[in-house]
Amino acid sequence: MILQSPSTPAPHDRDDASRDSPDSPVNRIANLCTDVPLTLDSGATLGPISVAYQTAGRLNADRSNAILICHALTGDQYVVGTHPVTGKPGWWTGLVGPGKVIDTDRYFIICSNVLGGCQGTTGPKDINPATGKPWGLEFPVLTIGDMVRAQATLLDHLGIGTLFCVIGGSMGAMQALQWAVTFPDRQRACVAIAGSWRHSAQNIAFHEVGRQAIMADPDWRGGDYPNQGTIPKRGLAVARMTAHITYLSEPALHRKFGRKLHDREKVTYGFDADFQVESYLRHQGASFVQRFDANSYLYITRAMDYFDLAADHDGVLARAFSGNPVRFCLVSFSSDWLFPTGESRAIVRAMTAAAANVSFVEVSTDKGHDAFLLDEPEFHDTLSGFLDGVAKLAGSTP
Amino acid sequence: MILQSPSTPAPHDRDDASRDSPDSPVNRIANLCTDVPLTLDSGATLGPISVAYQTAGRLNADRSNAILICHALTGDQYVVGTHPVTGKPGWWTGLVGPGKVIDTDRYFIICSNVLGGCQGTTGPKDINPATGKPWGLEFPVLTIGDMVRAQATLLDHLGIGTLFCVIGGSMGAMQALQWAVTFPDRQRACVAIAGSWRHSAQNIAFHEVGRQAIMADPDWRGGDYPNQGTIPKRGLAVARMTAHITYLSEPALHRKFGRKLHDREKVTYGFDADFQVESYLRHQGASFVQRFDANSYLYITRAMDYFDLAADHDGVLARAFSGNPVRFCLVSFSSDWLFPTGESRAIVRAMTAAAANVSFVEVSTDKGHDAFLLDEPEFHDTLSGFLDGVAKLAGSTP
Repeated sequence: MILQSPSTPAPHDRDDASRDSPDSPVNRIANLCTDVPLTLDSGATLGPISVAYQTAGRLNADRSNAILICHALTGDQYVVGTHPVTGKPGWWTGLVGPGKVIDTDRYFIICSNVLGGCQGTTGPKDINPATGKPWGLEFPVLTIGDMVRAQATLLDHLGIGTLFCVIGGSMGAMQALQWAVTFPDRQRACVAIAGSWRHSAQNIAFHEVGRQAIMADPDWRGGDYPNQGTIPKRGLAVARMTAHITYLSEPALHRKFGRKLHDREKVTYGFDADFQVESYLRHQGASFVQRFDANSYLYITRAMDYFDLAADHDGVLARAFSGNPVRFCLVSFSSDWLFPTGESRAIVRAMTAAAANVSFVEVSTDKGHDAFLLDEPEFHDTLSGFLDGVAKLAGSTP
Repeated sequence: MILQSPSTPAPHDRDDASRDSPDSPVNRIANLCTDVPLTLDSGATLGPISVAYQTAGRLNADRSNAILICHALTGDQYVVGTHPVTGKPGWWTGLVGPGKVIDTDRYFIICSNVLGGCQGTTGPKDINPATGKPWGLEFPVLTIGDMVRAQATLLDHLGIGTLFCVIGGSMGAMQALQWAVTFPDRQRACVAIAGSWRHSAQNIAFHEVGRQAIMADPDWRGGDYPNQGTIPKRGLAVARMTAHITYLSEPALHRKFGRKLHDREKVTYGFDADFQVESYLRHQGASFVQRFDANSYLYITRAMDYFDLAADHDGVLARAFSGNPVRFCLVSFSSDWLFPTGESRAIVRAMTAAAANVSFVEVSTDKGHDAFLLDEPEFHDTLSGFLDGVAKLAGSTP
């Protein structure tokens, strides 16, 4: 393990953005697995790899206050600060920062772009060293376990042995749970928000539709578009639009849009975006393709499809948590139909059967799956209370 | 009104299939609106039009036993018998036939392909008389009201003044309700199954994704593909795959497929259809494009989006049913998330407020929206009881 303070980056870490002030987050790219490549669940090896990450706050003297935040399918490492591509605030600015729920005055937060991603971590749009050209579909298929091992390599590099907590929502919850199962002794606590222990048939189906939309776009070129100078924008936009519906709830869509018309008094009897909800979806699709890589979308959705924590334990989920010392907090949202409460409850039952320490809250909200990204006081209070409780038990107020 | 027995078709009706036996359904195409074109809700006119229809059973002497069956978005007139394109049984063979719930020994059933459809009724793939070429996007945008008026014109042609009942599921339920509102004196009863009084924001969103998938396919050619010799198969398949997920429930998908692999022992770490649910969806997409026209899909989804029975009554649905003499039966399915029970309940509340005669049953099932096409004993018993009750009240056992 390389003991090195992240406040002085490793010599080969590249600063990805200038730092505005001492409180600003730091964005860097680490070059990892330079000696020994990462062995993937598929059996393939990958290395060296780049891992792009953001940190905020300060690592304390005994290196005990680090929180790893795991991002969702289309998220990235830009938790706080300004996103360099979109110019928008980081995706968890409401939750993370000085004096906020995940208090950067107390905790040192780390978030890395997942393996297979497109914001600086090695993924299919990067150069395959064997050919000198972008990987495309030659890139190895990944799992959530592979993403987690890449994160652990980053922590080794940063000199962080034990995390105070691993936190994630959606695919981030999958990573958080995988962390607890793979590295039970490297974290005190685990918060899995709006997640599951395995991807459901319906969710695999929605992912497959998205992939088929991308692959149906002639500009995808069998995945070789980075070498052929095209971008499968239309297919990726359709994939995003489909997925976006699943992130919201029907009541939220009704409240936000209903049947309201878009900049017109009457329907036009045509195929323009007469309804606001159509215009909104088209905008979601069009803006997504500006910041995301289509092949990354394929690889990351596939990793989620393959996720099944029970599979390595003869289908008995409880065995995955047998003897696990981590303190767990699970949160679900009542109107989330992508990762419904029942999936969190099933994990809680399995953890309880394994005598693991788990608390669980279902937050009442009509905001659907995306509630984990939004201002949900009950969710924020739950997370705040849980982190304080873990800190007290640890005998420290970081 | 042309009084003409359907057992002897109008001279210009074309038999669309040979009749196997006296009990076999009859498939014909009527040439309608030859003198006066149909005026559409958009203000455009359309005519002459062809309406392809199927009949089964026999019209009784006083012409009082006719049931109009309205099909769903991707359905057609082939309710019973063998579908001429797919070779499969008609879509409601389980419900309609001699001695069945909709008993063709008692009732004369009629089902016509909707206006804008692609199974023989005038739609965008047909020839625009003004240009001598297929309509494509020059075809006028339609409403559910337009579909219903085309059906009424067919009934005039068949010499049927008053229907015993109008029955439909999904988009068929929209038509059935529209029938009752537009022609309250032309039917004794109305059965609306798994429907709504207006298309929800979420459903408009799913339709928009399907349309965008079609329009993103370069083979769509701005809708002009019939003139350019291409078929937007890939886009239409993606549209179908997305829609198909919404027709099923998560529990049904879990029960049917779960995470079962397709013809393999292990995942392949690739983008083939590893999971059965993927293979199933791909098959649904591929088979759909063999029987459906992409532009028809655009037009029919748009008609559903525009459907809003309250809109003509200042948003007060009850007013649409004020003084309505029709006997209504509404059926919903507990696991239907496309047209959830709440939407049927809202109609029942409005009808009750308008002192209309309505009975309502929510059928407990995990089969989702598609339950209206499947063997659901409680649904079948409900429909059977309702039809018997209406027949008794009518003082006749047809």
